[in-house]
Amino acid sequence: MSVTSAAADPTGGRPVIPSRGSLRPLGLGEARITGGSWALRQQVNGGATLDHGRSWMDKLGWTGNFTTAKDGRGSQERRGREFSDSEVYKLMEAMSWEVGRDADRSRDHEVVELTAMLAAAQAPDGYLNTAFGQPGQRPRYSDLGSGHELYCTGHLVQAAVARTRTTGPDDLLAIARRAADQVCDTFGPDGVWGLCGHPQIEPALVELARLTGEQRYLDQAALFLQRRGHRSLPMQQFGWSYSSDDIPVREAEVLRGHAVRSLYLTSGAVDVAVETGDGELLDAVIRQFDRTVARRTYLTGGMGSRHADEAFGDDFVLPADRAYSETCAGVAAVMVAWRLLLATGEPRYGDLIERILYNVLATAISDDGTSFFYAHTLHQRTPTRDLPPDQEQLDFAGGPRAPWFEVSCCLGNLGRTLAALATYLASADERGVQLHQYADAEVRTRLVDGRRLGIRMETRYPDDGTVTVRVTESDGGPFTITMRVPHWGEGAVLVDGDQRRPAAPGTVELTRVFEVGDEFRLELPTRPRWTFPDPRIDAVRGCVAVERGPVVLCAESVDQDQGDLDLLRVDTSTEPQEVADGAVVAGYAEPPASDTWPYASVRPASGEADLGSVRLVPYHRWARRGSSTMRVWLPRDNTIT
Amino acid sequence: MSVTSAAADPTGGRPVIPSRGSLRPLGLGEARITGGSWALRQQVNGGATLDHGRSWMDKLGWTGNFTTAKDGRGSQERRGREFSDSEVYKLMEAMSWEVGRDADRSRDHEVVELTAMLAAAQAPDGYLNTAFGQPGQRPRYSDLGSGHELYCTGHLVQAAVARTRTTGPDDLLAIARRAADQVCDTFGPDGVWGLCGHPQIEPALVELARLTGEQRYLDQAALFLQRRGHRSLPMQQFGWSYSSDDIPVREAEVLRGHAVRSLYLTSGAVDVAVETGDGELLDAVIRQFDRTVARRTYLTGGMGSRHADEAFGDDFVLPADRAYSETCAGVAAVMVAWRLLLATGEPRYGDLIERILYNVLATAISDDGTSFFYAHTLHQRTPTRDLPPDQEQLDFAGGPRAPWFEVSCCLGNLGRTLAALATYLASADERGVQLHQYADAEVRTRLVDGRRLGIRMETRYPDDGTVTVRVTESDGGPFTITMRVPHWGEGAVLVDGDQRRPAAPGTVELTRVFEVGDEFRLELPTRPRWTFPDPRIDAVRGCVAVERGPVVLCAESVDQDQGDLDLLRVDTSTEPQEVADGAVVAGYAEPPASDTWPYASVRPASGEADLGSVRLVPYHRWARRGSSTMRVWLPRDNTIT
Repeated sequence: MSVTSAAADPTGGRPVIPSRGSLRPLGLGEARITGGSWALRQQVNGGATLDHGRSWMDKLGWTGNFTTAKDGRGSQERRGREFSDSEVYKLMEAMSWEVGRDADRSRDHEVVELTAMLAAAQAPDGYLNTAFGQPGQRPRYSDLGSGHELYCTGHLVQAAVARTRTTGPDDLLAIARRAADQVCDTFGPDGVWGLCGHPQIEPALVELARLTGEQRYLDQAALFLQRRGHRSLPMQQFGWSYSSDDIPVREAEVLRGHAVRSLYLTSGAVDVAVETGDGELLDAVIRQFDRTVARRTYLTGGMGSRHADEAFGDDFVLPADRAYSETCAGVAAVMVAWRLLLATGEPRYGDLIERILYNVLATAISDDGTSFFYAHTLHQRTPTRDLPPDQEQLDFAGGPRAPWFEVSCCLGNLGRTLAALATYLASADERGVQLHQYADAEVRTRLVDGRRLGIRMETRYPDDGTVTVRVTESDGGPFTITMRVPHWGEGAVLVDGDQRRPAAPGTVELTRVFEVGDEFRLELPTRPRWTFPDPRIDAVRGCVAVERGPVVLCAESVDQDQGDLDLLRVDTSTEPQEVADGAVVAGYAEPPASDTWPYASVRPASGEADLGSVRLVPYHRWARRGSSTMRVWLPRDNTIT
Repeated sequence: MSVTSAAADPTGGRPVIPSRGSLRPLGLGEARITGGSWALRQQVNGGATLDHGRSWMDKLGWTGNFTTAKDGRGSQERRGREFSDSEVYKLMEAMSWEVGRDADRSRDHEVVELTAMLAAAQAPDGYLNTAFGQPGQRPRYSDLGSGHELYCTGHLVQAAVARTRTTGPDDLLAIARRAADQVCDTFGPDGVWGLCGHPQIEPALVELARLTGEQRYLDQAALFLQRRGHRSLPMQQFGWSYSSDDIPVREAEVLRGHAVRSLYLTSGAVDVAVETGDGELLDAVIRQFDRTVARRTYLTGGMGSRHADEAFGDDFVLPADRAYSETCAGVAAVMVAWRLLLATGEPRYGDLIERILYNVLATAISDDGTSFFYAHTLHQRTPTRDLPPDQEQLDFAGGPRAPWFEVSCCLGNLGRTLAALATYLASADERGVQLHQYADAEVRTRLVDGRRLGIRMETRYPDDGTVTVRVTESDGGPFTITMRVPHWGEGAVLVDGDQRRPAAPGTVELTRVFEVGDEFRLELPTRPRWTFPDPRIDAVRGCVAVERGPVVLCAESVDQDQGDLDLLRVDTSTEPQEVADGAVVAGYAEPPASDTWPYASVRPASGEADLGSVRLVPYHRWARRGSSTMRVWLPRDNTIT
């Protein structure tokens, strides 16, 4: 193994640090979002959201479980679902990145306090899980299919990795290593042949190997990966595909089953492939993921179309009105795409990350940071309800943004992603820096040869398509600055002084000796545009969407003067018109059909009422202005009644 | 109460015997299917299907549970889900109707044998359930929300009602009465305020009241009905609507939540409304059901569009490729429609029954009667799998016809419906006889005034639209024979000797003094026809279906020489052409779109490959000729890419 031991990461925290690949990720010490909507979201996340999470987990006893575990009262008093430990760990991970981002001392103390709580609950042999193994509870590892034990350990490890990479090694790393060692002792080559129903331990162990230089963690991750796909988990209602246990990882053609499980596993597979130099495995994963993007992904970048099993549907089964598109699947898809971007340098993965950030993650969270969508419908037919601010939701997939869910994985996943968001902006290689996401931001790094390069991005993106890059630091020789041109960016231009160079979708590079103060800009076309679905997506046949840059727009009932979104049709013979924060299109109202039986042997009448202009707003803005209905896909024209 | 005590029904078994209403149902002694596909299905049902059910229930220990209950070993050895008792009861109900239909002595012995088994397991106070109340089990009635105890008792009562109405009162009736008395003692006006999460006891208690003349059973049914809708059941993931406990029955506007629960409850509500003369309640139920038919029902008559909670979706959410349309919801919708047809005389309920019979129930069961669809997709995208004939299925909603499911309610429900099918053919009133369903059949009855009328129907319906009616028995005065003209029957003609009278959709009557040997016929148009969906059904926008008489057709891959059903388009500028057992339409193949991202800013290319004729077959015939894909809704024309 070629990973290097790194006590604390000298370049600041980075969520993923592959030891090889096309691009080197930057840490929180190297990239910083300084303005715009993401800076605001980071601020709300670091304050309100993390406090909100802590307060609910205390109130519901999820943190308290560790105390009763310590006292041996676990089985009687334990509260929450069997995986609630993982929520505490994800919160700690988010807090750790937040400390790295903002050097917030009170969050630092909070992590120390929670770490002490975990230390006291950990068994002498390193095992740590409040739901198993104590008197009156089920024995350790007695329900690998659905007990989530190794999943929880994986999140513990991820929290420790984040903590160590942002603050340095402390007790949390020691706890995580003991827990990981216990896992390796139990499930190693000479141990029990087992694997977890919910993948997560796999990428976590690779990160721990990267952090500590310990080969056995990587080996154990590879072993878990190799064990999956042989139908060894217990059969249950949704089949082996639910846990990706139906087909070995390197033989599958597409992601399937429970979307979050499948995507976490894929993250781990990329990590193992990269660290072991297994090109065949990497190619297999790329093939699966690319096919998933091409056939099983919503316009928003959301993944998972089935409520019953939180799963990917078959190819092109992407219903708008029962889209599942779980927030956590968005986070997990960013994890996969970022790993593949680092491994391959392919800008299409940056496109996908951007799409998910603007249309899943930005949609998931309320402006005040204290309520969340668990799932993301693309078509709300009945008006959203108002929820009381203090009520936990049991129906986590069918309602509006809620303050808390019985299964509350979205908060921690959003928290850790937003706190570390700046690390997805840019990367470096031996030639220079690659800009993947556009925001008001500072990037300062050293290349492998020690040369320093500093960049300031200034932009109102995505409201405006111009991204200005100013060099703030530069020493020696020529650098290459690479910028991503999104796949919708046909007509983009790179403006460098008097030069205007067409920039085709993919990437555009500028290589020269940069002086401090040098400035150039990328102009991306952000006029609203029609987007048509593949005809194989039956659920949105005859519909059209409007996008503006990376932002998917929608029609929300609160903006419509008249008419019912059920009967709306839009006229695609003219282009959508740009207005502040959205677009307008011409619309018609369909006459209602029979009200006794919804199928008729005569074509519906074509008489229509002109609705004039129909206002569209960013999808991520919906459900923030009172009860409403909404649709992303708009039925079009009158030829398709 | 006006129900009359009837030890054994002198006119033979009838599933529902309202004491008032527009029409009087006929019993198995009055109506008989003599030929055609339904006669064949009845024969297979009475032999293979009932044997198959018995053999699986023995093998899995569901019958054995009653024996271990008797021995007090229930808690250790009990097998199957908490509602498995109900499957034994439904099988006994089916066997009882089968004895009434066919006077099969071996089935009669089997019911006697099973009755003895129940008698031994029943507690001295009348309580009978193998999953609760024994040492080591949960206490009786400790989980009304999801324990299904009263639901099971309801099915026990229905079995006893069927047995008594076909054979006369015996031990099964005594057992059921003791169980029902225990329920009334426990949950009566002075007892526990409770109700069952899964309705079923409500219609059962009304039938028991009708059978025995015992008012308290009717009162208890009315009380259970009244208690529902006040959110008193425990909150769970799918909300109170899951058990119709969100809104009082008489205030609701539409059926919602778990489809089978909702429809069983609606059956009970009609029964209570009819027996108590509560016109307001009846009107409320009619309003809800009619709206459900108009907005929440598949073209096949199937109900329920959500897998996660086996529930009705919102209005017009009727995805073809994830249609749930549970077999049991089909049975339950027939139960409701039959009750409403008897109460109101409205032929639209006969239309719905016919639609469900030909497109849900006929589809549910294999030709040999030993494998079943639990759910009914209208669009199979990936080829159906072959299942081993001896393997129980855990994924009851996603596969092909399977020999058995962990939740195996469909077999008993199909069994009891098919055995009693002849009773849905016709009814009587003081003027004469109404023919609701068309088949080769004999109907002989006496009117209220004692006059006898016998009819023979001869037809190849639905392959051919001509139904010939011959009078086989007639004494005294004029009779009226009424025939249903389906809503798609525009252009139908009643031919009486030289007279050809147009018969508009609804009903057509012939009133005169009939002599034995008199003959007339109804000619219904059964040319294949295009059917267009309401534009509010987003899932099938831009698609068309083909129907032929009451039969929905589909395209199945095994009939297509070339092309992929994903890319099929049909040309609706010409009419579908009739062929034996189906139709052909003209079709095109859509060119495949991009294979990297399924959304594009340019309209898909319109180049097409002519597929020539596309063969369509009855939906109920699909998945009987090897692994296949299938679609009911066909994308149409090239204007809607």
